[in-house]
Order: sequence, then structure tokens, then C-alpha cells
Amino acid sequence: MIQIAVLGYGTVGSGVVEVINTNHESINKRVGQEVNIKYVLDLRDFPGDPVEKVLVHDYEIIINDPEVDIVVEVMGGVEPAYTFTKRALQAGKSVCTSNKELVARHGLELLKIAEEKNINYMFEASCGGGIPIIRPLHSSLTADEIDEISGILNGTTNYILSKMQAENADFEEVLKEAQEKGYAERNPEADVEGYDACRKIAILSSLAFGNHVNYEEIYTEGITKITVEDMKYASALDMSIKLLATSKKENDKFYAMVSPVLVGTDSPLYSVNDVFNAIFVHGNVLGDAMFYGSGAGKLPTASAVVGDVVDCAKHLHENVMTSWNSEKLDLMDIKEVVHPFLVRIKGKEAEMADAVKAVFGAVKTVSVPDVEGEFAIITGPLSEAEYEAKAAKLPEIISRIRFKA
Amino acid sequence: MIQIAVLGYGTVGSGVVEVINTNHESINKRVGQEVNIKYVLDLRDFPGDPVEKVLVHDYEIIINDPEVDIVVEVMGGVEPAYTFTKRALQAGKSVCTSNKELVARHGLELLKIAEEKNINYMFEASCGGGIPIIRPLHSSLTADEIDEISGILNGTTNYILSKMQAENADFEEVLKEAQEKGYAERNPEADVEGYDACRKIAILSSLAFGNHVNYEEIYTEGITKITVEDMKYASALDMSIKLLATSKKENDKFYAMVSPVLVGTDSPLYSVNDVFNAIFVHGNVLGDAMFYGSGAGKLPTASAVVGDVVDCAKHLHENVMTSWNSEKLDLMDIKEVVHPFLVRIKGKEAEMADAVKAVFGAVKTVSVPDVEGEFAIITGPLSEAEYEAKAAKLPEIISRIRFKA
Repeated sequence: MIQIAVLGYGTVGSGVVEVINTNHESINKRVGQEVNIKYVLDLRDFPGDPVEKVLVHDYEIIINDPEVDIVVEVMGGVEPAYTFTKRALQAGKSVCTSNKELVARHGLELLKIAEEKNINYMFEASCGGGIPIIRPLHSSLTADEIDEISGILNGTTNYILSKMQAENADFEEVLKEAQEKGYAERNPEADVEGYDACRKIAILSSLAFGNHVNYEEIYTEGITKITVEDMKYASALDMSIKLLATSKKENDKFYAMVSPVLVGTDSPLYSVNDVFNAIFVHGNVLGDAMFYGSGAGKLPTASAVVGDVVDCAKHLHENVMTSWNSEKLDLMDIKEVVHPFLVRIKGKEAEMADAVKAVFGAVKTVSVPDVEGEFAIITGPLSEAEYEAKAAKLPEIISRIRFKA
Repeated sequence: MIQIAVLGYGTVGSGVVEVINTNHESINKRVGQEVNIKYVLDLRDFPGDPVEKVLVHDYEIIINDPEVDIVVEVMGGVEPAYTFTKRALQAGKSVCTSNKELVARHGLELLKIAEEKNINYMFEASCGGGIPIIRPLHSSLTADEIDEISGILNGTTNYILSKMQAENADFEEVLKEAQEKGYAERNPEADVEGYDACRKIAILSSLAFGNHVNYEEIYTEGITKITVEDMKYASALDMSIKLLATSKKENDKFYAMVSPVLVGTDSPLYSVNDVFNAIFVHGNVLGDAMFYGSGAGKLPTASAVVGDVVDCAKHLHENVMTSWNSEKLDLMDIKEVVHPFLVRIKGKEAEMADAVKAVFGAVKTVSVPDVEGEFAIITGPLSEAEYEAKAAKLPEIISRIRFKA
């Protein structure tokens, strides 16, 4: 019998318990023996919930029980998750987690401990919820050198953007609705400012490129400044605006960034709507691939966590989830990164033509019938520095959005 | 050093050699030692090609060389691939393949031999070309009970259908163009009649459901009868027509079929166009997921084959690719399978209204301005048997297409 302990009985934790109970038979068959939840750790009590029978409030009970083989850390946040995980690994217990904050911050160190102890630290659920992406990157795309990984990695912002575009609705209005539906948290900062996507792309890039990407070095821009007018331009161009977390190799250099971008119908990311997530990967021999599914939610996330539990159970004392290199991946200065831009400009197109041409050269223009008093231009590929230098010369600029490179 | 032998220097075989040469460094790093192509087997000579140095015409050289650890079978067809694979496995050499015909027909037996010999028979490239799907099904989606797997599994037919719909072009015309571009073979039967997709869905279903699915029992209908008019109705409904290979669990029974179906914008399969493939999976806890990429082509397919080589090399004498059950999965009689249908009917809508109502009850109708002398109806969910019984009463029916269930 494989004994597991679940740390945290919140959304994901209760999902893990539910998945293991629901699919008990097939999970045990795949593992080759019974998987049993011996403990659930939570500070709260849950009177009347069957979890009461295994509920403990003290981590010491779990860490000191030699029968516990696998610890499922689904508490979220850095502490005490970090301390609990480290102690579990040091005690020879494998750990499975959905905690992207912890993996982005301390994943490298925790993976090294797992390697030394010949056990595993697994985190499939930390990026893309239920979508299998960590294991495919690690075990399937091994013939390739990956030169791009880009994802719609945050369901909340994708829901908001999809809704804004489909209904010509305001950011604030849709955010409020998302909060009411439980799709967005009361403090939505981590989602709408792109911090959540930033942590996830740091993890994915580290795995895809093999060297450590520090999430604090990734340029991150959220969606709070996206307006109904931006959406109208996007629709006029037959494109959609997505909060994209990208890392890409260009001329042997790497860049990583999170920002809203315009995506065209030629990209499979174009039609990823609502709370769905998708991760696009380009390999030098594979070409394009995309992994799509539920990026969040109790059961999809728990599905990924329990998939890791099965893998850990099948490899109890064998390290199969190898780490990335501790060498840091040097990221390009964001100022050097090149995109075409959609630039919205105040005034009448005819009257502004010369001023625009003087700054940006000959460019295509876009106007949308019901967005008055302004028009937009589509620049050629410009570095951020070039764009900023040009934009400084044209005070009539309202805003700019990048096109997906 | 890991020594490998490649059987067949055709499109995929030369791709495998190219991938191993191109990404030599990263592949060796992942394996932990050098991967070397010791032999390439082909009946032909390739004067001037660097492959000459390792080219052999006699399989006995390979099978009798104890240094060969892994055999890559990319010959296609059942014989001599079957005999060569069986002998390699019996000799303790792992085998990687892209050969869906062989896996669909003899996969179960070959997997059992690999298990007995504690080596591996891997076939990631047999379904969906470069798309990682076999390994995710086998190693990632282990917390789920899968109740549907449906795929656009044939690039040739997807190219033809996409083109027919985008350009209102005839099947014959687009097929000819596809043949000129090398997207379709001179004898396109295996693709356009759905036989290729049928073999692939048999493999995927066996893995997803755990019991053996016999491809000969899968109802298979190709795309040769799809017309420009069908495409016009699809466009009018804002849907696309896809050759879908589906297997699905319904009320504890399973069905499997390959046929053209109408897919709406609510499905991520809707926007999978051109030669791309995609595999949709629904798990009881995961919900919806989709895997997208290049379903064919030299390098994408070789990427998947070499990914298997890396996995085999890392597990030289350890069976990691477990088999499915030899018990046969009982498939439902196709007559019981239920879909809504789009039914095209000759005549004027108003004049036919009573006759249609007498047979199908109250139904929605569709007409397309430039398709004259006919209209179409959308039925409710009907079993194939029910549909056929009704259709027999209405001689004015031109054709029918199923909606994706």
C-alpha cells in the first residue's frame, strides 16, 4: 500500500481527495497497489466531512510517519509550503505539487534534493492546470531543441479578454462579473497583472531550454490597460488579444516576456477562449505543437496532481523527474526584443499622415467605424527601444499593443 | 555508446538520420551517452549519400550484431516489418516505430514480447505524427478514466477538406492538387477512405480504454462523397467538416467510428486546418484536453521516433511502455450509435414541409442561397438505425452528414 498525505484541504486539496476516491480502482491498477490517503493536513476543522477521519493539524505527525511515501503539497504560497516540502524530500518522501510560486522560486533547489535522495519532486499541475505539459516537455520532446514556448497560461485573464472582445465590454465590468462567478479572486492582482503567468513561463522555459530562468527577470505587463477600443481594432483585424507568456530563442539569444498581444487566425492560440489555457511549443524538428485544456479548476488541476502521484508511486525510490541546469539562462534586454506594433493615434488620419510618416515611415492604417477621433497604424518589426524612441516624437499616441512575434 | 539500426531509408528513415545528426549534442546529453547509427537497412543503394557508410541490404547483419541495442522500424507495411520487429524483440533489442498498420494489427503481441524480454516496443509516431499523444495517454492521464478520444488523424484528408471549404472547390480537383504538392499519394485510398485514421484510432482507443480494439471492427466512412454543396451548408452553419476518428464511452458501452462530421466553433477541433492533426481527449476528472501539431511529414514524424529512441536508450533493460489488456473491447453495434444529422433534401422547402414533418417531426431547416433546388434539415439525435428507417421513407434525400456527438 502506498500511503500519501495531502497538505491543504482547499480547492485543489479536496479535488485530490475526490479524484483518488472517484477513480480508486483504475488508479490502483495503474500503480500496481493501493493508494491510500493516510492524512490530510489543514488548520481548519471540517465537521461532518468524511475527511475528518484523516484530518490532522500538525505537520510533525506526517513528517515523522515513516509509512508516508508521498506528500501532496497543495497549500499554495511560499511558506510554510517551502519548509514542509524541503523537510519531506529530505526525509525521503516524494512530493507532488500544484504550487507554481514555490516551483518558480525554489524548484531548482527542491529538484536537486529529490535527485540526491533518489525520489521525485513533481509539479505537472503548476503550469496549465490539467494540461499535460511538464511531462511531455521532459519525456516526449527529447529529440528536439525547443526554440519557442508560448502560452495562454492564466484562465482568469483569458476569460476576461475573451468576454471583452465577444461582448465589447469594459475590463472593469467583466472583471466584476468574473469575480461574481468565482473565475477571478477578490484581489485579482496576481492574475490581471500577469504575475501568475510570469511564474508559469519561468518554469516552462527552464524545462524547455534546460537552464534556469529567474521569474523576477521576466518583463511582465498585465491586461488592466486593455480597453473596449483595443478589442474593436483587434476584431477589425480578425485577430484576438491574448495575455501571452512567451519565451523564445532568437539568434542564439533568449527572451521572455508576458504581455497582451494580438494573435491572428494563423495561430492555433487564436481560438483558445474563455477559461481554457494552451501552450504552444516550437521545436527545431517537430515544428509547431500545441497543448490545450483546462488551465485551472478543482478537478482538472487535481487530475494533474494525481497523475504525478501515480508516477511517484510507480517510481518510489527512483529519480525520474530530472532537473534543469542550475546555470542561469541569460535573457536578452527587453529593449532589444522585436515586434510589430499596433499603435492607436489621436486625430484624423488625413491630417496626421505626414507626422506619422515622418516618425514611422510608410505604414498600414486601420480605422474602426465606431471608434471616433482616432485611428491606428501597424508598424513594421521594431525593437522596444526603437518603438519608444519613435513614440516619444508623437504625443498623439494613445496606446500600443504588440503583435505576436 | 548506444548503437541503433534504422530499417528503411524512405521519408521517415532519412528523417530519423537527419534528426539524430542535427540534434546530436542535446540528444546525447539527454540519453547520458552517445547515440550512434550503426546500420541503415534498405534494399536500394544511395550513391553519394553519407548513409552509404552504414548502409546494409541484409537484415541478418543487424539481428546478429549483439552491439545493436535499438532497432528503428520505419519501413511501413506489415511484412517484412512484422517479422523483423518480432525477431529484434526476441533478440532483446528494443524497437521504435512509426508503423501504424503493424501496431494496429500486431501491437498487442509485440508489446507482450517486449514485456517478457524486459525491453520496449514504442510507437509514439504511429498516431498523430510528431504530436506527443501515446506517452501522455500512457504516463500523464493516469488519474483519469477516459471516456472519449477523437482525432483529426489524417493530414491528407484534413488538407483536402480545409481547402474544399475555404475555396468552394471540388473533391477531385483538390485531391489532384494535393497529389501534385506531395500531400496525397498517387493511390490515395488509405487516406481518403479513412483506413489510415481507422488504424490510428484503434491504437489510441486500446491505450485509452485499456482493452484491445480491433481496427477491423471500426465503422469507417471516407470523404470521397463530400461535395462543394456540403461545404456550403457547413459554412452557412458556421461549422467545418472534419474526418473524425472517434471512440467514446456511452452508458458503459463503447463505440468507435471514422466518418466526416460537422464540427462547431465550440469544439477546439473546429479550427484545426490544413495538414495539421489534433487529438481531443475527455477524461472524467480532467475534462477537455487537446493535443495539436504536425500529423505527418518527415521531420515531425522523425522527432517522435527519435523521442522514443531516447526513452528506449534511457531504459535499455527496463520495460516502461506497458501494454494494454489482451481482452477485446466489445464495441457497440454501429446501428445503435446516436448523432444528430444534417440531411439534404431535393425540392422546395415549402412543398416538402409536410412530407419531412411526417418522417422527421418538427425540424430546423437550412438553405444556402447558391445551392438551388434543395434544402437541408437538422434532425434531433437519432441512432443510425432510426435514421436509416426514416430516410427510407423519403426518396428525396440527397445525402446526410453527422454532427459531432
